[in-house]
Amino acid sequence: MQERAVRTRERILHAAAEVFDEYGYAGTSITRILERAGSTHGALYFHFKSKEDLARAVIVEQARGLDLPKKPAGLQQLVDLTLRLAFELQRSVLLRAGVRLAVEQEESGLREYSVYACWIDRFRRELDEARQRGELLPEVDETEFARVLVASFTGTQVMSQIATRRADLPERIALLWRYLLPGVAPAEVRERLVVAVERGRTPA
Amino acid sequence: MQERAVRTRERILHAAAEVFDEYGYAGTSITRILERAGSTHGALYFHFKSKEDLARAVIVEQARGLDLPKKPAGLQQLVDLTLRLAFELQRSVLLRAGVRLAVEQEESGLREYSVYACWIDRFRRELDEARQRGELLPEVDETEFARVLVASFTGTQVMSQIATRRADLPERIALLWRYLLPGVAPAEVRERLVVAVERGRTPA
Repeated sequence: MQERAVRTRERILHAAAEVFDEYGYAGTSITRILERAGSTHGALYFHFKSKEDLARAVIVEQARGLDLPKKPAGLQQLVDLTLRLAFELQRSVLLRAGVRLAVEQEESGLREYSVYACWIDRFRRELDEARQRGELLPEVDETEFARVLVASFTGTQVMSQIATRRADLPERIALLWRYLLPGVAPAEVRERLVVAVERGRTPA
Repeated sequence: MQERAVRTRERILHAAAEVFDEYGYAGTSITRILERAGSTHGALYFHFKSKEDLARAVIVEQARGLDLPKKPAGLQQLVDLTLRLAFELQRSVLLRAGVRLAVEQEESGLREYSVYACWIDRFRRELDEARQRGELLPEVDETEFARVLVASFTGTQVMSQIATRRADLPERIALLWRYLLPGVAPAEVRERLVVAVERGRTPA
């Protein structure tokens, strides 16, 4: 794509994320997105076929621009990553809208499991590295636990959103780890791990 | 209320649950609910002020008719209860619609944390009993863990719904326990516990 086309697509995607985040899937119209983006029907339909297509893009591209660590580094980085995501959900409208649409996807008629599969894969890479480093209990299945972690994170953010508009999400994620870690790591590894909300504040 | 009024309210609530379950909040209209219930506007508005009011009733009354054990009995009953709920989500349209509306409540503009608070309380009573019976590790905070469990269950059912329309939910809940139990119960208690999907099939 030409650079200008890339920028236009980006502007429309970001506007769509803002509107989905604010009004949900049903409350969002193409017109409202165009107003927000300051764009034309032609430009929008050049990049996206429909509102559904836009919602799918917001779901699938939710993590773009987060600048997450590329190289897996084991259990501490996995903990830090989840705390970081808790803060990013407060900051990034693309992540927030993507997560909301993923959770509420029955509303949109989408069935897009791929974004969950992506996070499972991302977390599993840290767990594979953790295994290499001897940080995991023998009975842990890396893929299984990655799935449990994505599910638990998802439900935690749903409840935090309703209770406090996600203001307490980092604390809730830290608490979740308190109960998950004994099932994953031996005591001597847990002693070295730091589960501290502040670690999520700045990019890892 | 007169018996007839009670039955009418029940019929309308059940019809609303069916329609919400099928079409979501935005896709549901009062007309559609009336058609499904075979009822009149007058009857509906006698019991419920609005679509929002109906959605709130479905959320809050989601667990009615489940015939859950009244008397707390500790950790095994808590495990069984969550497995039972996994099956009930496949069977009971009221529970299913209530959970869906609770998770997607931004769509409806509701902010009804009370149903989560109810489940936290229900689970905490089992944990209090578990504490009495010496089934919990000293560092476990009963209310905290009840909250973690409700959040993890919620996220697990969201993912299972998208992946398999909840067909694999009981297995996913059993798996969740595999990773949660070591943070909650000492080894000798865990050895006695049975985490088996079949235990959720029949009422506890």
